[in-house]
Amino acid sequence: MHYPNGKRNNGINQLYAGNYPKKFSNRGMTLEKDINTTNKFYKDTNKAVIHKKPTPVQIVNVHYPKRSAAVITEGYFKQPSTTDYNGIYRGRHIDFEAKETRNKTRFPLSNIHHHQISHMKSIEAHGGIVFLIIRFSTYDETYYLPAASFFPYWDEQFNDGKKSIPYGAIKEKGYLIPFHFQARVDYLSIIDQLYF
Amino acid sequence: MHYPNGKRNNGINQLYAGNYPKKFSNRGMTLEKDINTTNKFYKDTNKAVIHKKPTPVQIVNVHYPKRSAAVITEGYFKQPSTTDYNGIYRGRHIDFEAKETRNKTRFPLSNIHHHQISHMKSIEAHGGIVFLIIRFSTYDETYYLPAASFFPYWDEQFNDGKKSIPYGAIKEKGYLIPFHFQARVDYLSIIDQLYF
Repeated sequence: MHYPNGKRNNGINQLYAGNYPKKFSNRGMTLEKDINTTNKFYKDTNKAVIHKKPTPVQIVNVHYPKRSAAVITEGYFKQPSTTDYNGIYRGRHIDFEAKETRNKTRFPLSNIHHHQISHMKSIEAHGGIVFLIIRFSTYDETYYLPAASFFPYWDEQFNDGKKSIPYGAIKEKGYLIPFHFQARVDYLSIIDQLYF
Repeated sequence: MHYPNGKRNNGINQLYAGNYPKKFSNRGMTLEKDINTTNKFYKDTNKAVIHKKPTPVQIVNVHYPKRSAAVITEGYFKQPSTTDYNGIYRGRHIDFEAKETRNKTRFPLSNIHHHQISHMKSIEAHGGIVFLIIRFSTYDETYYLPAASFFPYWDEQFNDGKKSIPYGAIKEKGYLIPFHFQARVDYLSIIDQLYF
């Protein structure tokens, strides 16, 4: 953990950026940006090929001006039917979803859609490596939670009505993902431990 | 090949739809629709999980009307940096690009982008199954061309200036993909032959 005080401070930077020295300000990145940086590093070093899927958009109207690029003038966001990230690592298919929360005690399930879960279950059944990356931004802790540990919470919510996973359970069943300067969310190090 | 005369007639239907009986008209589908139907069938029968990636869009302006969905009012098409399709089959990572041409003698390389080729080469190096699906719509023939057979043509164009692959070469190095009513482009049958 390359921090002077041994602590990361993304969330705090975002809230109180003015109180921190300028040189820390680029650490106030979102989880998505951190993962994109990590994936680029994995690709550049030929470690893995993992991409974020584009945001699905329903395109309704496109304008074609002369001599310049087509402009989408009416479009709508569609609900994704798969996870956001997939690719290949050491010959294995990788598939995951990433979410961050400012909640200090639980991870709300409301950010995940039913068909994303179906997708994750199918990929796992077909032999893929499937997981969630969950960041508690106030603690600046990012966890790797195997899909198999996540599914029971998802399925139970329809019985017990609990629409979230306690922070403690994620701490217990998940793996804290180490931070490195270039691999900011170094989730492949966890996959190495678990699968290879 | 479930056709009265043993031939598919997609391309012909599209050109001369009025001359053909109504009941054939739904065969005038594009390659993309045929592949989507096939992937849905693979998924529904739990054979494989393969999806088309959403079209990448650069979103510039979004309008948030009260009480209704957000509207993208300005967006632009971005060049894709990966192939259009990927997923998992029998534990293996699958990655492919699909293109159709009305050209009768050659497949023009201009439809494929340089970074898509880099992507395919990386995926192959990491152990994925990578290929192109190429349809000659006037013959209504759809070929599976292994990426390894495609790369030399791509690389050679910068030496010999030939910006296309002859139809005969694709016929020779590719595999004619069978048509089935539900798996309209049954490319997994070719993968079964080649890999399992």
